[in-house]
Amino acid sequence: MPGNPVSTRIVLASRPSGKPVVGNFRLEDEPLRDIAEGEVLLQILYLSLDPYMRGRMDEAKSYAKPVEIGGVMEGGTVARVLHSRNAAFNPGDIVLSHSGWQSHAVAHGSDLRKLDPDQAPVKTALGILGMPGFTAYAGLRNIGKPKAGETVVVAAASGAVGSAVGQIARIFGARAIGIAGGREKCDYVRDQLGFDAAIDHRSSNFAAELKAACPDGIDVYFENVGGHVWSAVFPLLNDFARIPVCGLIAHYNEDRSAPGAQDQLPAVMRAILRKSLTIRGFIQREFSDQRADFYREATAWIADGRLKYKEDIIEGLDNAPDAFIGLLDGQNFGKLIVRVAA
Amino acid sequence: MPGNPVSTRIVLASRPSGKPVVGNFRLEDEPLRDIAEGEVLLQILYLSLDPYMRGRMDEAKSYAKPVEIGGVMEGGTVARVLHSRNAAFNPGDIVLSHSGWQSHAVAHGSDLRKLDPDQAPVKTALGILGMPGFTAYAGLRNIGKPKAGETVVVAAASGAVGSAVGQIARIFGARAIGIAGGREKCDYVRDQLGFDAAIDHRSSNFAAELKAACPDGIDVYFENVGGHVWSAVFPLLNDFARIPVCGLIAHYNEDRSAPGAQDQLPAVMRAILRKSLTIRGFIQREFSDQRADFYREATAWIADGRLKYKEDIIEGLDNAPDAFIGLLDGQNFGKLIVRVAA
Repeated sequence: MPGNPVSTRIVLASRPSGKPVVGNFRLEDEPLRDIAEGEVLLQILYLSLDPYMRGRMDEAKSYAKPVEIGGVMEGGTVARVLHSRNAAFNPGDIVLSHSGWQSHAVAHGSDLRKLDPDQAPVKTALGILGMPGFTAYAGLRNIGKPKAGETVVVAAASGAVGSAVGQIARIFGARAIGIAGGREKCDYVRDQLGFDAAIDHRSSNFAAELKAACPDGIDVYFENVGGHVWSAVFPLLNDFARIPVCGLIAHYNEDRSAPGAQDQLPAVMRAILRKSLTIRGFIQREFSDQRADFYREATAWIADGRLKYKEDIIEGLDNAPDAFIGLLDGQNFGKLIVRVAA
Repeated sequence: MPGNPVSTRIVLASRPSGKPVVGNFRLEDEPLRDIAEGEVLLQILYLSLDPYMRGRMDEAKSYAKPVEIGGVMEGGTVARVLHSRNAAFNPGDIVLSHSGWQSHAVAHGSDLRKLDPDQAPVKTALGILGMPGFTAYAGLRNIGKPKAGETVVVAAASGAVGSAVGQIARIFGARAIGIAGGREKCDYVRDQLGFDAAIDHRSSNFAAELKAACPDGIDVYFENVGGHVWSAVFPLLNDFARIPVCGLIAHYNEDRSAPGAQDQLPAVMRAILRKSLTIRGFIQREFSDQRADFYREATAWIADGRLKYKEDIIEGLDNAPDAFIGLLDGQNFGKLIVRVAA
């Protein structure tokens, strides 16, 4: 093995207060250590950018440890094996890893999953066939449980999770109503993904348009944004509605001490009681034992055209901070992925 | 049959704004109609007073229709059959009915359940062996699902539902922490009902005392009150905690437009997400198919001393409004029942 490669990495320079800015990130070069027995040296090809990463930038307790100041930003990656001291991996193999925002990494083989480029484009392992797709599947199958003819509503409907939620809901026989920002995304959700309707949350008439699209109320609201979308959805919830909560992108950047607003909690609790609502937070890994089902089913749905996906590819690791900041404002269109190397 | 009896009834005179006052109720006499084929004439012996009745006094949409202005206040009752045109019932039979706040009523036999005075005191059909007891059982069995060694917290712990929640949680192998108002109720909950601890929510140190009583956090919070109890419970909830919501007595009388308070909803939604919480509203009748299990199990638990109950008996229908107003302030001590006739 020649001299150890240098990894170009993006580290957390400082914790954001509210919306992250580019100054919260810093590009660094760091030589990699030698790989030990069982490990491999990876060249990162694709980096996934996902809203959950905003939570990792805060110090607050979450289901995962925050990124340390000076630590590499966390993230799912698709990588090529350059060098291996693990019998299960050979140079040239393409793997799914969780190597974060960097160009190269050392990883143990037990943390990798080998990808078959002949079965599906490898970057789908970060999107429709990866964590976002499985989040949609697991949340619907275990919590939303839409019945045939019921109405399922999801926001960020052109995004990685939302687009899968609506399409899988329709595969399960439900009506799917998507909420997205702007005409172009709404047209895509309705015309390309086949949702029953798409509503623009930027419309001045948003709540009324959502209500008109849900004449029988809402049975499942797949919560991935929070904020004013929740406020429009809330009065339309039917008795026994289910609300899987996988994200709250509208709240990630908010000022948490804003006073003066009316406390919405009592009204929500009363509705939970009156309507026998179920609100359930989840992270996909809780349902890991269903991953094999998911791969099998989703691969078949993609093959027969019932499950479509869109990727928004950014070129170059140095553009990751800007792209991530835009993601939190809904500026991406499809699953946001950084091409780190050709 | 001699001349039809007159029913003395308490009707809703006006809708309360906030806390009900005696002026919202009116005592009336009304002659009863003849009974038709299949019906019976009932003399009410006991009337149950329950927090849910506050909701029926409002116009707001709920899971049940509001009581009309001038209509008899709704409620569960134990009654004696005076006259029967239904082959299944004979004069002298004791039945569970839903006849409301009145001395006599006409009911169809299909709406009645015959009670056996030899099996249990008949007024337990309004409490420990009735709707409140079954609410505790169904909420724990289907939503709270406490595992052995987990911590279950319930407020109004000396009341009809709360006392059953804690004792059944212990039968299921969990630790039970009760919250009640005042030393006397707390002593009863801990010493007589056998809860592992009892905390006085009127203590100036309430939140700290609750935390000390829950060193491993809270796995199940059986929500029947809301308000400041929720605020103390909320930070102690463990990952994957379950919160069955069967009542919100602290909110029933509140002014719903109080401005200036911080909006608690975003923090609660973030916790739902971070901790994978389940919040689920319910009404016991959703689980009606488990009633037979409940009667069998609860009767055995009462017989072997593991499930105790306390009744707070008020004499005379004309005292029902005052007793009901006191119930919403926690002035009762045990299941509140009005003795309507000897």
